[in-house]
Amino acid sequence: MANKKEVQERVAIAGPEIRQVLSLPDYRDRLLELFDDLHPYDIFTLIDGLPYEDIAKIISALGKRGIEVFEYFPDEEKKEIFYCFSKRKMVDLLEDMAPDDRADFLKKLPESLLDDILPLVAQAERNDIRRLLQYKERTAGALMTTEYANILPDMTVEEALNYLRKIAPDRETIYYVYVTDKNRKLLGLVTLRELIVARKTARIEDIMHRDLIKVNVNEPAEEVAKKVSNYDFIAIPVVDNEDRLVGIVTVDDVIDVIEEEDTEDMFALGASGVVHDYTQETTWGIAKKRITWLLVLVFVQFISGAVLQMNSAQLQAMIALAFFLPVLSGMGGNAGSQSATTIVRGLATGEVLIEDFWKIFFKELKIGLLVGGVLGTIGFVRAWFIQHDFRLGVTVFLSMIATVTAATTAGAVLPVIFKRIGLDPALMSGPFIASIVDIVSILIYFQIARLVIGL
Amino acid sequence: MANKKEVQERVAIAGPEIRQVLSLPDYRDRLLELFDDLHPYDIFTLIDGLPYEDIAKIISALGKRGIEVFEYFPDEEKKEIFYCFSKRKMVDLLEDMAPDDRADFLKKLPESLLDDILPLVAQAERNDIRRLLQYKERTAGALMTTEYANILPDMTVEEALNYLRKIAPDRETIYYVYVTDKNRKLLGLVTLRELIVARKTARIEDIMHRDLIKVNVNEPAEEVAKKVSNYDFIAIPVVDNEDRLVGIVTVDDVIDVIEEEDTEDMFALGASGVVHDYTQETTWGIAKKRITWLLVLVFVQFISGAVLQMNSAQLQAMIALAFFLPVLSGMGGNAGSQSATTIVRGLATGEVLIEDFWKIFFKELKIGLLVGGVLGTIGFVRAWFIQHDFRLGVTVFLSMIATVTAATTAGAVLPVIFKRIGLDPALMSGPFIASIVDIVSILIYFQIARLVIGL
Repeated sequence: MANKKEVQERVAIAGPEIRQVLSLPDYRDRLLELFDDLHPYDIFTLIDGLPYEDIAKIISALGKRGIEVFEYFPDEEKKEIFYCFSKRKMVDLLEDMAPDDRADFLKKLPESLLDDILPLVAQAERNDIRRLLQYKERTAGALMTTEYANILPDMTVEEALNYLRKIAPDRETIYYVYVTDKNRKLLGLVTLRELIVARKTARIEDIMHRDLIKVNVNEPAEEVAKKVSNYDFIAIPVVDNEDRLVGIVTVDDVIDVIEEEDTEDMFALGASGVVHDYTQETTWGIAKKRITWLLVLVFVQFISGAVLQMNSAQLQAMIALAFFLPVLSGMGGNAGSQSATTIVRGLATGEVLIEDFWKIFFKELKIGLLVGGVLGTIGFVRAWFIQHDFRLGVTVFLSMIATVTAATTAGAVLPVIFKRIGLDPALMSGPFIASIVDIVSILIYFQIARLVIGL
Repeated sequence: MANKKEVQERVAIAGPEIRQVLSLPDYRDRLLELFDDLHPYDIFTLIDGLPYEDIAKIISALGKRGIEVFEYFPDEEKKEIFYCFSKRKMVDLLEDMAPDDRADFLKKLPESLLDDILPLVAQAERNDIRRLLQYKERTAGALMTTEYANILPDMTVEEALNYLRKIAPDRETIYYVYVTDKNRKLLGLVTLRELIVARKTARIEDIMHRDLIKVNVNEPAEEVAKKVSNYDFIAIPVVDNEDRLVGIVTVDDVIDVIEEEDTEDMFALGASGVVHDYTQETTWGIAKKRITWLLVLVFVQFISGAVLQMNSAQLQAMIALAFFLPVLSGMGGNAGSQSATTIVRGLATGEVLIEDFWKIFFKELKIGLLVGGVLGTIGFVRAWFIQHDFRLGVTVFLSMIATVTAATTAGAVLPVIFKRIGLDPALMSGPFIASIVDIVSILIYFQIARLVIGL
């Protein structure tokens, strides 16, 4: 993601200059000069924020590099820029975009527009588009590019290098070269490093790695990300059910997947809704995302109020009971957030497994008793010294232990159950756990008060 | 990170077999056969969990590949395994480890052991160790490896390729080749892909990229990660203050930085302490991390209790006021968690800036009024219909708006202030914001009750 400050500063400087250039008759040459030797990402940061027509003009002027610049824009902005192009330019762009970015982008366009332009796109690209469009979002298939480098096993190293030299400009990477038979069945892998070092006359099949780590085209994106990051790969091959090579996923796309997943987990844990660009999104948009969760939570919280009302006679009889309500429900909520956070992250990184259910349960039970015991003791001391009431102290002590233990176990176990039944474990957010624990803590508190104080 | 399930299954199968092999006199040859053609990461997952002496034996037997296996273990386990080696083997290992992993690992060893072995390590490696050890953790310097490939600008493409062929085995990557002068001053970059495609007689200085994206050796790791991920690099050069190339950071280490940072942010937001391997860590260890935060929070919560006590006369006069305490403090906590999560993540990805302070403040103020208005209306309806008290309804309505607005603004603004004064914004966790808002909500509630109901 862009460092927004840098972008803002650079647009403030470059913006007026660029717009001035655009008004000149020879703006194409001027732009090429202005952006000479700049990385497409830098050009993107420089022109991001300009009116969409200007961006479209610049992208058109920059040719192939313009397409790389275009690929850096978020899908929503891509759409707006795209609408500024002529139909001919739209077709050119689709033919030259990286296949994985193209497929993602096309999914966002309206059907009617697609029906209008796709027939104009060259046959080869059209087939590629059709193939990639069929994969579900967040699978290896949707993430992969079809621009991989593959060679045949009976080539010599020299032949392979000559071939790579020819195809290099059109491939996403040539650092990993995949070895396939005539039917594209995946046989092995050689790295460009190995090709450089090997004897020129060696045969590929004699130097290639055979036991490959690969992913199926339907595997979830997060599994792909885990494999690439575990094995420190630059790319991973994607095969269909017949073990034929259909694409590769490169490490830069894997980083995007990791950041995206982490962002979503974090937002889920905070029950805040996914906000992709805080400063860009409208107040209304953000408020709508948040209120959805809050409406669920407010009704859960009303139950706490109702439970309190059921115990209002006791509360009336001993108002001091109320003074410990905030600390009990608060600490329950905090302890529950803690264990939910730990377990949700553990499930995401693969360090915690559904199979560990009982292990987690007993561990959190013990942690709850320990932590609850310490906090309960503090509560007891406070009640005894400040309220001068031994039995109130005991009530607070026992309630704290019970509340905190309920919170740690519920906070840990509920995400695991969610994962087990196929839901996102991060939906068991801190706020949600806190609200549930709140009800439990009030129930426990008054029950214990009845037993110990005997109201 | 490893998928623990797979590891467990594989160790269950392979574990006994491996241990049996280790008891044979020709165990070295047997091991080489057993692990033939396996990726070091797979060997790591197979032997992780065996007794440390067995792991040490296997690593010794596997030679260079054994060192790669060793590098996959977490630092704490590395230490235990390391202690099982002979002094001679320790020295060999240190000489052959990747420089970046080695420096990280050595920081974890006791001084006395270092004084004991370092003098035995070869001069070149010893200098390298000394250089890397001086960089602070979480900087480009601590993250980088010194095993980069560099060439001189007056070489031809053919000379460069011949040179790369020779040095390839000792370099972390040769896909990016850095061009330096005799004093290691960084002049440019060529990729191996470009070298393959270029004319053999072309001069490096004529084909290299000159405007390089690079990082200073003291730059924080997260800035390095942002650059590599923004520009889709495989590696980024690290230079000292005189612009001399001192190392490179590769994309696989960048992924680790991103995951590490995200994990820490998430744990900070949940106030749960950083738990790196939940199932490995002891109950005591986890409880200790959590209790630290809870002890801070419990004293904040006691203030809520005290505020409640100050208003006990009112509470006594109208016990129904108590029924709305949980929902007010709960919704305040939830709304605060939501905005804190959004802003902390935004600050981490660079989408939200410290400079946006007032923009954020007013946005959250508006969101708070909107969201609080909706929730307050629901509260009003409930109070009026169930408690049949119009004035209580108005009190709840106004208190909800005030509480939620205070929560959204505090939740958003406090992390920004923390970042501004150089603290980790994620310390303004959901639980912490919730506890502070709790006090505020009780204060507001009784103040409004006094005004509206006139108790």
